[in-house]
Amino acid sequence: MSVGLSEPSMVLAVNGVQLASIASGIKTNGNDDLVLIYFDAGSSCAATFTKNAFCAAPVMVARTHLQQSPPRAFLINSGNANAGTGKQGLNDAHQCCDWLADNLSCRSVEVLPFSTGVIGEVLPMEKLHTGIIPLIEQLAVDNWLVAAHGIMTTDTIAKVVSAQLKIGGETIILTGMAKGSGMIKPDMATMLCFIATDATVAPEILQQYLSRAVENSFNAITVDGDTSTNDACMLVATGKTAIQVDDASDPHGYFFQALEKVCITLAQAIIRDGEGATKFVTIDIEQANSKQEAKIVAYTIAHSPLVKTALFASDPNWGRILAAVGRSGLPDFNIAEVNIFLGEVCIVRTGGRDDQYTEERGQRVMNQAEITIRVELGRGDERATIWTTDLSHDYVTINAEYRT
Amino acid sequence: MSVGLSEPSMVLAVNGVQLASIASGIKTNGNDDLVLIYFDAGSSCAATFTKNAFCAAPVMVARTHLQQSPPRAFLINSGNANAGTGKQGLNDAHQCCDWLADNLSCRSVEVLPFSTGVIGEVLPMEKLHTGIIPLIEQLAVDNWLVAAHGIMTTDTIAKVVSAQLKIGGETIILTGMAKGSGMIKPDMATMLCFIATDATVAPEILQQYLSRAVENSFNAITVDGDTSTNDACMLVATGKTAIQVDDASDPHGYFFQALEKVCITLAQAIIRDGEGATKFVTIDIEQANSKQEAKIVAYTIAHSPLVKTALFASDPNWGRILAAVGRSGLPDFNIAEVNIFLGEVCIVRTGGRDDQYTEERGQRVMNQAEITIRVELGRGDERATIWTTDLSHDYVTINAEYRT
Repeated sequence: MSVGLSEPSMVLAVNGVQLASIASGIKTNGNDDLVLIYFDAGSSCAATFTKNAFCAAPVMVARTHLQQSPPRAFLINSGNANAGTGKQGLNDAHQCCDWLADNLSCRSVEVLPFSTGVIGEVLPMEKLHTGIIPLIEQLAVDNWLVAAHGIMTTDTIAKVVSAQLKIGGETIILTGMAKGSGMIKPDMATMLCFIATDATVAPEILQQYLSRAVENSFNAITVDGDTSTNDACMLVATGKTAIQVDDASDPHGYFFQALEKVCITLAQAIIRDGEGATKFVTIDIEQANSKQEAKIVAYTIAHSPLVKTALFASDPNWGRILAAVGRSGLPDFNIAEVNIFLGEVCIVRTGGRDDQYTEERGQRVMNQAEITIRVELGRGDERATIWTTDLSHDYVTINAEYRT
Repeated sequence: MSVGLSEPSMVLAVNGVQLASIASGIKTNGNDDLVLIYFDAGSSCAATFTKNAFCAAPVMVARTHLQQSPPRAFLINSGNANAGTGKQGLNDAHQCCDWLADNLSCRSVEVLPFSTGVIGEVLPMEKLHTGIIPLIEQLAVDNWLVAAHGIMTTDTIAKVVSAQLKIGGETIILTGMAKGSGMIKPDMATMLCFIATDATVAPEILQQYLSRAVENSFNAITVDGDTSTNDACMLVATGKTAIQVDDASDPHGYFFQALEKVCITLAQAIIRDGEGATKFVTIDIEQANSKQEAKIVAYTIAHSPLVKTALFASDPNWGRILAAVGRSGLPDFNIAEVNIFLGEVCIVRTGGRDDQYTEERGQRVMNQAEITIRVELGRGDERATIWTTDLSHDYVTINAEYRT
């Protein structure tokens, strides 16, 4: 189940990028589980990775390889995270890169490995080995949607988005895909996200763009507060368009805006397809002293199991929102300055229940599938927006039965 | 449902303390909802209250009254938290104190009000008013268990514990009761806890004892990470025994030890009766740089919905524990030093899966109703222990249907 999400009707291929997806047998249900993204030589790449101290073997290998060379290929398996697998996990991740490099006639450091799925089990290497050649044979420029299916785990729907813009008269395309549904509270990155553009962008500028875009998209979502061991967000520019994108050629920042929009759309798609989600919830915190304290309050609300179960029940139990704001731990916090809104309905004004509030008005907002909780802190001019889901029986079922 | 918890077979009355409980009609199911605890003159009192910035009206009134006089009576209602009720809530809490004081022939500031239940609804004052006289008529010294029933909300079992000790040849009794099942992550206090002793203890020493005892008991539990607006923990010493308890008369700290044991037993009882709990989980963090960082790691594990649903499923999905430790945000965290144990079974050694670990060994531990997760951080000599529950379908049901 997902909230207001459907597969895209139009996906734009990116000149210089080919994709492939097969079922290698890692997933026992026969779904695709091995994906290859292959870039033409001369592409530049930017990346953000999980900050979880227990990062997975493929994340460590990808990071190291990126320092040595621009990448030519991403090899992604779903169904197994290759995390918590120690030295063997590292060896396996390197071996996968070697195998692919041999068959693509590139160097092993030009291959970046990515894994997503169960933590703590070693990769079924024979299945991966057997899959490499059939996978390469499937490479095609119009396989974005197929590949987005191949990287899914508990996702119920493939997440792909395209954008198109003009800079200096030239048309530039951006297409990205993401997966993620649970263990979602990205920290500088998301579960797995791959974006490509045919634009020509210098690596350091590309990295700046990506880091900024991630901040207000993947770093502003949470399903369950659990930061994954395998998060990675990759942006590749194949340089197939003649114009060099930078502040001089794009003074209004149209390229960054398009990139940020792609990131936000994919980040929201992860929330709309959050494990067990029946609600898509926007949390706006305004009048904060800093963006950081706005995010603290936002995440305290978003991670409250009591707020999340009230959202699931469509119950305007706003006292739980108030309690979450109150326990968020801001210094010198004067609740008499606080207003809280459910959609357009004011529920708390200057720290107490609003005179105009009625249960019926709150109920009308809570009945909707898409809900905005807005808090005015009365402390300053900074703000932050994050997106989250409710906590449903399906979330418990999905995660209680994940390995069975 | 509760985990390994039954009503006490023996509750010791405390000389100088009378209790009463009635059904005033605040709860629509006809259960008791109005409780009175009445102390003889000359009692001393210590207290800790919630640190939630949105603290409830009765908490504000109780705090103010305590500064003006030692209390003679606690008036506690369940079924309504009188929180988020603004000025009217404050007026109502004061009015309750006035009514009780009139009928007990004491001053209004000698009455402390406590409320627990739904947030954001005003108290049904007529029911409270009508209940005062019948309530007073029920006062008796052996009503601890009855009163413990009267303060319950989603609790499934009454929580009372007694202790007895000798200091200087004199027998001292400590009896306490608590309520709490959800919205449980106390911060310097618990949902509601009332402890009394017949010992003679100076107020400032009593406060020191209570603050220390709360730190390793009520401040070391979590059901859902949601700190309540109404938490309060009260300790009253009626001074009926001749000996003055202090460091001189009790150099080995037996009184404090008995008090801490009462607090830990009641805190654990809240967890054993946590909303929807099917597991009682102890989280031990060892080899930390500070007690504070040990608690951060412990709470990160305890609040992870993925760890909690795995516990509910009795699934030894230890990768989720590892991921939670990894995202806890400790500075300069070297995972190669980390060992993780499920009961006696080592699952992670020096950052990777332990060679001796098998799924069967993990499963045997997870099948138990009482589980210990122990983490050695390899950073220092400090440690912390906290207690928590799993996340079950019943938790979602209880909190989705709380107000229906």
